[in-house]
Amino acid sequence: MAPLVNVPFDSLPSKVEVIEVCPRDGFQNIREFIPTAVKIATLDALAEAGFKTIEVTSFVSPKAVPQMADAAEVMADFKRKHGKIEAVALIPNIKGAEKALEAGADTLNFVLSASESHNRENTRRTVEESLSELAEVCRIKKDKKARLSIATAFFCPFEGEISGDAVVKIIDRGMSLGCDEIAIADTIGTAHPVKVHGTLKTVRERYPEDRIVLHLHDTHGMALSNILTALFLGYDVFDAATGGLGGCPFAPGAAGNAATEDLVNFLNCLGIDTGVNLTKILEVSRAIPDRLGIPLCSHLAMTQAC
Amino acid sequence: MAPLVNVPFDSLPSKVEVIEVCPRDGFQNIREFIPTAVKIATLDALAEAGFKTIEVTSFVSPKAVPQMADAAEVMADFKRKHGKIEAVALIPNIKGAEKALEAGADTLNFVLSASESHNRENTRRTVEESLSELAEVCRIKKDKKARLSIATAFFCPFEGEISGDAVVKIIDRGMSLGCDEIAIADTIGTAHPVKVHGTLKTVRERYPEDRIVLHLHDTHGMALSNILTALFLGYDVFDAATGGLGGCPFAPGAAGNAATEDLVNFLNCLGIDTGVNLTKILEVSRAIPDRLGIPLCSHLAMTQAC
Repeated sequence: MAPLVNVPFDSLPSKVEVIEVCPRDGFQNIREFIPTAVKIATLDALAEAGFKTIEVTSFVSPKAVPQMADAAEVMADFKRKHGKIEAVALIPNIKGAEKALEAGADTLNFVLSASESHNRENTRRTVEESLSELAEVCRIKKDKKARLSIATAFFCPFEGEISGDAVVKIIDRGMSLGCDEIAIADTIGTAHPVKVHGTLKTVRERYPEDRIVLHLHDTHGMALSNILTALFLGYDVFDAATGGLGGCPFAPGAAGNAATEDLVNFLNCLGIDTGVNLTKILEVSRAIPDRLGIPLCSHLAMTQAC
Repeated sequence: MAPLVNVPFDSLPSKVEVIEVCPRDGFQNIREFIPTAVKIATLDALAEAGFKTIEVTSFVSPKAVPQMADAAEVMADFKRKHGKIEAVALIPNIKGAEKALEAGADTLNFVLSASESHNRENTRRTVEESLSELAEVCRIKKDKKARLSIATAFFCPFEGEISGDAVVKIIDRGMSLGCDEIAIADTIGTAHPVKVHGTLKTVRERYPEDRIVLHLHDTHGMALSNILTALFLGYDVFDAATGGLGGCPFAPGAAGNAATEDLVNFLNCLGIDTGVNLTKILEVSRAIPDRLGIPLCSHLAMTQAC
């Protein structure tokens, strides 16, 4: 018998950073307005759990996403109370960037899509126009960080499969504009390990040392398998949303993010340190149905076994 | 920079068999009696989807599991209509084996637990007593197949972690008694890739050629990650339940099986052929809430994107 192949579990990173994005990606998809006090209470509870970075809110047009109309108030409150935690703000344009900086955000998370058609749906711009806007953002950010998030980086709901080379080209542009970090997003949650492996290998070979965040939705239940694949390649920063909340208002069929509690438990099981207190996350998660009136999309929060 | 490690996607099997277990593992956990005609209609629909093997029912005491009181009728109907599909029957003891053979089952799926305490809860026997019963089963099976299913093979809800060596010892016993195949079960669904890798590597090194089925529950959302790990090691037979139904009446906290539709979609994405028609499975799955009055635990069936 041929020897079994080596599955590189001995190459997993020893530490991983989990970035909590529920207050942005989770909340933005809830139609009914969440009172500002509830948003702030959720953020306060999450801040207790040990995250180094939290995506706090989104400085989008209140017309497009009324849920985020209180972004400035939420961000200012968060920075006042939890100054040591890196506060990320999603921004769709220069106007959002200015407001986010004014409210105290540490990182401006600028989103564009790898596919023209999703970028148009999401931002009403061509990719080239978005990159010009990103150049502006990099100019005004001063000592703050700019993150370029690449939506639909594996599959686009309108255009289908996106090549790894297309993703690399956008990263090249972002890096040359002065972005501090990149996020690669599976916006509709249909990426699978073979695809993730292909794109992430291409990206890591070109950018071996840069901070690259993975943002994976769990529409088809493959988020953890995709994360396992990424871990084998040395990726060590992942977005996740407590309760598995999230989606994309402009991507048909998209479901929530990888649930923070499922991811932290997964990483714990793999012997990887996250610094995140799982018990506190589960408290926040299990309060979500009552607090927000929506169901959970989390395995761990729904079992009695943990 | 050191070269990236090799993640062995080029070693994945090209074909995998998915065994449908919803009619047994799924149904046994539904408290309200499912009319025999509904069970049969579900089996008929599943039989159209291209499975080579279906676990049809369970010949347990109707006192212990009233849901399975119609096992003989369901099995006989199935074999009459779908004779080419291998019909598996779960059996807890020699009495169940006799009834299953009489009703036409092709494979007697005898379950014992790797842990004494779960075996006692599940079967009221010591592991040694179960093995004596298995010896009897192997004696009476004639030209039919005997499968030894090892429950709580990774973790036991009462005893904690189970060693790979303990699993191998039980497989050794089963093989020496004349079992035709083995199933390794994560009964409570708390196994994770590192644990699965350790045990499955040990087992495969000792039994490189035998048919070994994996039966994984998805309590913590890691079933597909565990299956990916097993695929890297060359495992190519997996139980799954349409709709993600299932559980264990005698294992606190256990949730449903890996959902057949999520697994088949996953394998399709990895370029692995299963011969299973995903569209037909989704039809059965999406009919479950109406037909059985219970919610789905399936990603694919709940999204609009597929």
